[in-house]
Amino acid sequence: MKKINTSKISGTQELLPKEQIIFDNLKSKIANTYRSHGFFNIETPSIERTETLLAKAGGDTEKQIYKVFKTAETTDESDQALRFDHTVPLARYVVEHESNLTFPFKVSQIGLNFRGERAQKGRFREFYQCDIDIIGRNSLSIAYDADIISTLLEALKSFNINTPILARINNRKILTGLIQAFNLEDKSKDIYSIIDHSEKVPFEKTRSNFEEIGLSPENVDMFIDFINLSGNRSFIIDKLKNLNIHNETMSAGIEELDKVMSLLESMHLADNISADMKIVRGLDYYTGTVFEFILPDHKEIGSICGGGRYDNLTKYFSDQSFPGVGGSIGLTRLFYVLNEHHLLNQNIQSSALLDYAIIPISEHEFEYAFEIADKLRHQGHTATVILTDKKLGDKLSHAATLAQSGIVIGESEVSSKSLQVKNFTTGTTTNLQV
Amino acid sequence: MKKINTSKISGTQELLPKEQIIFDNLKSKIANTYRSHGFFNIETPSIERTETLLAKAGGDTEKQIYKVFKTAETTDESDQALRFDHTVPLARYVVEHESNLTFPFKVSQIGLNFRGERAQKGRFREFYQCDIDIIGRNSLSIAYDADIISTLLEALKSFNINTPILARINNRKILTGLIQAFNLEDKSKDIYSIIDHSEKVPFEKTRSNFEEIGLSPENVDMFIDFINLSGNRSFIIDKLKNLNIHNETMSAGIEELDKVMSLLESMHLADNISADMKIVRGLDYYTGTVFEFILPDHKEIGSICGGGRYDNLTKYFSDQSFPGVGGSIGLTRLFYVLNEHHLLNQNIQSSALLDYAIIPISEHEFEYAFEIADKLRHQGHTATVILTDKKLGDKLSHAATLAQSGIVIGESEVSSKSLQVKNFTTGTTTNLQV
Repeated sequence: MKKINTSKISGTQELLPKEQIIFDNLKSKIANTYRSHGFFNIETPSIERTETLLAKAGGDTEKQIYKVFKTAETTDESDQALRFDHTVPLARYVVEHESNLTFPFKVSQIGLNFRGERAQKGRFREFYQCDIDIIGRNSLSIAYDADIISTLLEALKSFNINTPILARINNRKILTGLIQAFNLEDKSKDIYSIIDHSEKVPFEKTRSNFEEIGLSPENVDMFIDFINLSGNRSFIIDKLKNLNIHNETMSAGIEELDKVMSLLESMHLADNISADMKIVRGLDYYTGTVFEFILPDHKEIGSICGGGRYDNLTKYFSDQSFPGVGGSIGLTRLFYVLNEHHLLNQNIQSSALLDYAIIPISEHEFEYAFEIADKLRHQGHTATVILTDKKLGDKLSHAATLAQSGIVIGESEVSSKSLQVKNFTTGTTTNLQV
Repeated sequence: MKKINTSKISGTQELLPKEQIIFDNLKSKIANTYRSHGFFNIETPSIERTETLLAKAGGDTEKQIYKVFKTAETTDESDQALRFDHTVPLARYVVEHESNLTFPFKVSQIGLNFRGERAQKGRFREFYQCDIDIIGRNSLSIAYDADIISTLLEALKSFNINTPILARINNRKILTGLIQAFNLEDKSKDIYSIIDHSEKVPFEKTRSNFEEIGLSPENVDMFIDFINLSGNRSFIIDKLKNLNIHNETMSAGIEELDKVMSLLESMHLADNISADMKIVRGLDYYTGTVFEFILPDHKEIGSICGGGRYDNLTKYFSDQSFPGVGGSIGLTRLFYVLNEHHLLNQNIQSSALLDYAIIPISEHEFEYAFEIADKLRHQGHTATVILTDKKLGDKLSHAATLAQSGIVIGESEVSSKSLQVKNFTTGTTTNLQV
């Protein structure tokens, strides 16, 4: 009988062991891809000074922050809270350690973030974000934008989910330039906001939103046509150039988009990318390249990864300029939706079991069982020895819940050194050489 | 110029990228050893209800707990706090999920715990604990105590620190029985406490402590002799039997200690274990086997791992009985002290660099550089492509800070497909087949 409530608190993830293995495997795949692409991992503390976390933030962020305090409080300590993303701690880290870093600094962060969001299905208060960023000192080549996007694509492709992955890519300078060219700078925030929400509302609503902010009918048509532009690089770059708009910012944006996408093509990722003028990624922060990944056959899932280029990571912490580009996979939410959509294939599932369970019939065979387990582990296998003092039948049933194969060891096996491996799934038996 | 304080908060770990790789490698080695020995990893939320965390605790624990609260508080939520160890969440997990678990449940937990301790050198407020436990339902074979100790030993041996590791092992039933045999149950807590502190005070202080609680001179001598017993199994088991004390609890303790140590001997770990009557591991909780690991050539470091057997994991959460045995490596502190003592060898240090940096001379070679990087990654290597638009000399210096070897790609390499790899440490150049 339970004495107290033993459920986890709401808005957190708690998995059974066989689900946890799959989650951990995906996390390892991301970490290995980031590492193999030359990103250096760092881990900042979960707890930061509240003033650091809120240096740039405001509004919703401040409301969602988790403050922490010790029950035995001492007066010498500042107001502290749990980090809500990896960006603010990274900015602090770069300023603090810049003399020990080499730039461009390719950095990954895989860890828990905390947000006191309203608990609801698929929304988490404690969740893994898997970020990569490349930070330059004073300047950073546009080619690194492609480095970020390709690494994130490779990380997600390594999941072997049997559905395509598409990176929708844009450059905010294009829209900014377009707004300038039409002298609509005073409506810039509204236009960005309407486009940012355009996929969450019915098509006609976007049109009426543009009308409501006072755009002329011609301009409404123009923006509607503009945000519907999406497709492969050469098609979109042609379309954008054919608009014949003479604005330096817009031209720079088109050139950058062309460059990033052609680099991605040269990495044989043409099938995974699409230029898309609907992608703006919120109101501020990003200043050039922006991207969002989706699963085109499961559009209802929405964005599974996003990021972009920012002018200066550290503007709230330092007077130096550290431009950067980065992106993030929200693994806890992604794992949740992939499970909901049955997209984690059997291949991954079977890895949940151990390779071998070794079943000594009695204590007399423990020593030999340990020896066999040790040899199997040195060959890279996972192995457990069943040490209960139950009947053989019970030991075998227990073994079958843990491992793919079982090896029973009795007196005759010890004397003959000849072992039989039973595959619990197929029921077949083979001889083992260790 | 810094605008605000960018240092981490005190009592937390924040490493430079090349230190972080070493830390991450050690964490992986632990995780891989736990997994290869058949432990299933789980991860409970960092945040728990305060009533759950404090179900068993009190005193210092309550003072050290970190409470959390959202800045926009809603009334429907309970008092919450950050976990201070993995034991309480595991107990909650086992009760909550027991119908979906198979017992004995071999489980690992590797994650951050939080304690608002007074900040001081080598003490952390946010730190990694790497736990393993084996939980039985109603009963659990003593052989699993050896399974825990051997797995922890293998995990630490996998660090390849060039210094011996010793597991000091005891069984609390021996001392409990001894106290019973001399009718000293009323002084039991004092005796446990004096022995628990005996290595932190001068030798003579332990004697006077025993005298102060009213033991007779003969009994003081007896306990002093007793706690000085340490050595290999056969020696210590003989010594204990020769005390000729007829007490069932003590006999059971001796038998269990004999059993655990002989199993460890059968795993070829005789050189890494020693029976030691000074090991008691605090005042309550543990009920049988107890152990602490040390580095005998660096005794000043103290315990680097500890654990033991407990009668019932879940007594504060359920009326069912779940006896268990477990142990924990405090990785953040261990990493700190191993660094302080220069015990992380060069072998580990060199892994901090990437395998390859690929250096295209101009943009024209980007495509071929990506192709080479991709091939190297598929061969299991780590590789980064230098995409800055700097001079070749600057690119090479940057590459040398990141990777062990560099591959320069210019027009002639693209046309000839013949590549040269420069080892940045030795300066030697070799041809590369990819």
